Amino acid sequence: MEERYSRNRIYVHPKEQKLIKHFRILLAGAGIGSIIAECALRFGFESITIVDGDIVEESNLNRQNYRMEDIGKSKAEALKKHLLSINPTANITSINTFIDTDNMEELINGHDIAINALDFKSDIPLVFDEWCQKYNIPVIHPYNIGWGGLVIVVKPTGMQLKDFIDGWENFELKLVEHIVNYCKFWEQPKPWIENIIIQYENEKSILPAPQLSIASWIVAGLCTNIIFNIATGQKVKYYPKFHLSSIIDS
Amino acid sequence: MEERYSRNRIYVHPKEQKLIKHFRILLAGAGIGSIIAECALRFGFESITIVDGDIVEESNLNRQNYRMEDIGKSKAEALKKHLLSINPTANITSINTFIDTDNMEELINGHDIAINALDFKSDIPLVFDEWCQKYNIPVIHPYNIGWGGLVIVVKPTGMQLKDFIDGWENFELKLVEHIVNYCKFWEQPKPWIENIIIQYENEKSILPAPQLSIASWIVAGLCTNIIFNIATGQKVKYYPKFHLSSIIDS
Repeated sequence: MEERYSRNRIYVHPKEQKLIKHFRILLAGAGIGSIIAECALRFGFESITIVDGDIVEESNLNRQNYRMEDIGKSKAEALKKHLLSINPTANITSINTFIDTDNMEELINGHDIAINALDFKSDIPLVFDEWCQKYNIPVIHPYNIGWGGLVIVVKPTGMQLKDFIDGWENFELKLVEHIVNYCKFWEQPKPWIENIIIQYENEKSILPAPQLSIASWIVAGLCTNIIFNIATGQKVKYYPKFHLSSIIDS
Repeated sequence: MEERYSRNRIYVHPKEQKLIKHFRILLAGAGIGSIIAECALRFGFESITIVDGDIVEESNLNRQNYRMEDIGKSKAEALKKHLLSINPTANITSINTFIDTDNMEELINGHDIAINALDFKSDIPLVFDEWCQKYNIPVIHPYNIGWGGLVIVVKPTGMQLKDFIDGWENFELKLVEHIVNYCKFWEQPKPWIENIIIQYENEKSILPAPQLSIASWIVAGLCTNIIFNIATGQKVKYYPKFHLSSIIDS
């Protein structure tokens, strides 16, 4: 095993370490995705394509993987630079553009897994999942619920997120409500999430959802574990199952 | 609320955001502590004292918060530089020294919480907890169990880790075995941890325990949440209770 990965021993077999090095991750959206990318790269996933047309803003710094000097710059390029400072021989590609129906198929093709961290400004995140399904690519959906991380994995041959939810407007909110209702049905209510949703819906102006570093870091750990399990052919919980992790519920 | 923390809204009250800014964290050990520090800083904990006499090695890069250019340099200083690149006005102090009985009391004094991520090369981590108890400082113990994060919080007036475990040799291993036995007793066995312990004990040479980025990121999220709860006077699970988080058990 390379010196860099020597402390992965026992947990990760040398053959697995070699395999994941070239397992091609498509990071669609470099917001919450920026934290996942670092955790996955350090673990040993050295092939990452970052696609995001957004630029870094000061308000990202509470939870995303950017520094003061990155403000005003391309997220995809800033993240690439940061990842290469950790591992200069990693195969990191940055594409400073927003994913749309014109470039989507070309961007997806050639990857083994996709992390769908795209903004719901249109139905693009749902169309993205459809294309991944056509190319037989599993899709990981990471969500930041402040004190807790939510991760959903869509199987190429399985159910899609939209199968339970109508339209794309407020999709993430509806998805979280769906999850909360599921938990309630199984007698594991999440009053803290319900309370946050009420406060968010009662805000005077329509603002982007609040998010904390706590959920981003938890989600990064969960996603890296799931990517490893998929890459090595191990069992994974697919949608409609999900992972919700928070110390409030523990 | 400052622009930097604008997306913390709803979860974090402006008064809490102000309060945690000056809540003084002592980071004793900048290994796993290096990941916790970034998550806590981004959340809003702007007063952090980093104490570590160690230097960065290539084998740290699989899970700790360092880059190639940091190799051979002081962990405490490299981490300070990195944290200031995220928030240049934060109050970050780096002390490039190992904690021992001579400097311990002086280092602990003046902090509101301590993260005990010290190496068990002697009984120093246990003596550290005793001094924190004298100064009425809660101590957070973060542990990396590869696929899962373990976090234990020692209350100033409560039980100490050593109350259940004899001696300091192999302390972390004995502690994890203690936790695993506790889980077994309550019919929530953790065969994956037992399996790792057996493999670790069977290694031909005595090596430092293996650790993965996955646990470091999960632990960072948990610890930041716990620090916030302590800072704002909320309920916390103290030792002998603990937090163990992994997707294997979910």
